[in-house]
Amino acid sequence: MVYIGIDLGGTNIAVGVVSEAGSILAEASTKTLAQRPYQDLVKDMADCAKKALAKADLTVDDVKSIGIGIPGTADQEKGLVIFCTNLGWANVPLRDELQKYINKPVYIDNDANVAALAENFAGVSAGCKSSVLLTLGTGVGGGIIINGKTWTGAHGRGGEVGHMTLVPDGVPCTCGNNGCLERYCSATAIIRMAQQECLGYPDNAILAKAGGDPEKINAKIVIDAAKEGDPVAVRVFDQYARHLALAINTITAFFDPEMIVLGGGVSHAGEFLANAVRALLPRYIMFKALPGPRLELAKLGNEAGIIGAAMLGK
Amino acid sequence: MVYIGIDLGGTNIAVGVVSEAGSILAEASTKTLAQRPYQDLVKDMADCAKKALAKADLTVDDVKSIGIGIPGTADQEKGLVIFCTNLGWANVPLRDELQKYINKPVYIDNDANVAALAENFAGVSAGCKSSVLLTLGTGVGGGIIINGKTWTGAHGRGGEVGHMTLVPDGVPCTCGNNGCLERYCSATAIIRMAQQECLGYPDNAILAKAGGDPEKINAKIVIDAAKEGDPVAVRVFDQYARHLALAINTITAFFDPEMIVLGGGVSHAGEFLANAVRALLPRYIMFKALPGPRLELAKLGNEAGIIGAAMLGK
Repeated sequence: MVYIGIDLGGTNIAVGVVSEAGSILAEASTKTLAQRPYQDLVKDMADCAKKALAKADLTVDDVKSIGIGIPGTADQEKGLVIFCTNLGWANVPLRDELQKYINKPVYIDNDANVAALAENFAGVSAGCKSSVLLTLGTGVGGGIIINGKTWTGAHGRGGEVGHMTLVPDGVPCTCGNNGCLERYCSATAIIRMAQQECLGYPDNAILAKAGGDPEKINAKIVIDAAKEGDPVAVRVFDQYARHLALAINTITAFFDPEMIVLGGGVSHAGEFLANAVRALLPRYIMFKALPGPRLELAKLGNEAGIIGAAMLGK
Repeated sequence: MVYIGIDLGGTNIAVGVVSEAGSILAEASTKTLAQRPYQDLVKDMADCAKKALAKADLTVDDVKSIGIGIPGTADQEKGLVIFCTNLGWANVPLRDELQKYINKPVYIDNDANVAALAENFAGVSAGCKSSVLLTLGTGVGGGIIINGKTWTGAHGRGGEVGHMTLVPDGVPCTCGNNGCLERYCSATAIIRMAQQECLGYPDNAILAKAGGDPEKINAKIVIDAAKEGDPVAVRVFDQYARHLALAINTITAFFDPEMIVLGGGVSHAGEFLANAVRALLPRYIMFKALPGPRLELAKLGNEAGIIGAAMLGK
């Protein structure tokens, strides 16, 4: 038997046929075109699934279940998308609609949870009894895995690490609160901090790489400049790493997973980032003599969305 | 069959015989006298257990298992107390030692976890699939319950909510870090904040209740004065409630339990405290339209230690 994994993004719908062992056997994808009625998107999901099955010389009869990772919040029992801001969805009966085309069990979960599941099944945290993935992108998402299952909490709010309060009365957040973790640990935060530093110290490698235009600064530019030792970039990077270490301390004190995994765009900074955070943790973490969570980089990349969604039914 | 629950405190060892339904059938207790060799304490535990069994007209043959709540960190697999600062214990083979006297399965866990389990079994959070207990005392402890079991994390650090970072670079903590949650949400924090406020505004109800001596201020005095509307006490109480609400926001964003339970000495402020925190949460919590965790007061009191320890084996 195989599993269908669907990665529903704001730009693309990517669908894969996934083996019991967590390998992608075949893929198909299409544009999301999010403005359409949800029924049209769901029909495209089913068409892509059938196309991918055909590529793998399989049929719907070979499918055990379908999993969908969504950029939003799901009610797993009812098979609903509670909301999905990027797509303008609220209370969409995704499971029922998809079962009109492929009548198999359908599981729905948040995309960060799904990525965490993929890493825990076939990635860096494979075999861990508990793990937490932090997706360090435009915002910060998170996924919690306990005994091979995603933990989404009692009301679908679990794993929203980006909105843990990191700094009381801190930087205003899009959610209406202040000082949320994602205001300090996202790519957006790196850009904001770099732009602020550049106001005071315009003669730096960040601005040089951005062609002198602060609006063109991105996280990669800042991290590359920090790797080269530019003092302004190093200061921004150190602030970033420090906030991430404080966040990881809080997750460790509360939950103490076997492993914490860094994913998302900022994690492409690689061991440069992971080592910086690892070096800071002993300063913050209690019970210094006891072992703590391992901190590692995600390794599945874009495939995580499909693999993790597929594994929701396992 | 019955369960033995042992509440190992710095002052007393309290032992109870507990029914399948979570009621205490009989109790016995003795002084801890923590300076003694651990072997002597463990012998006293066994003697108290046998005494309590006799009171309930039962024998060791009626016992299914023994659970022990300790003021420290346990290795549940090995049956060890990793450390227990109050008792000066490190790597004490508690399970093996106790089984010399009563050869039944022995389970060991942190006292806050055990109290959380008691509330989840027979207290305010009975029947919740997930709950978090915050013990607001001299420090702040915590216990996480998932599907009727304590969650202690991968390395025994889980539930140490008192050392989540609430305020980066905040008040120095005994653990060596700064800004730990327990520096803002404990009874000690209330006293510290009140003493600071009294320096600037000595004409207040707190100092009057403390006989004019700032060293005699305790959390109850401050909360009583706040209930009476004393402006200085209200300011301290509001700061306290606000930090607690921020901490609860962080726990909700990360873990989203079905219920968050307030226990420990400060929780004796009752609905005055719970209502103040409930009123603040909508300001902080994301997805305001979604339901969130219920916030309630613990209801088992001192019995929680025995009942929860007993239920470790259930």
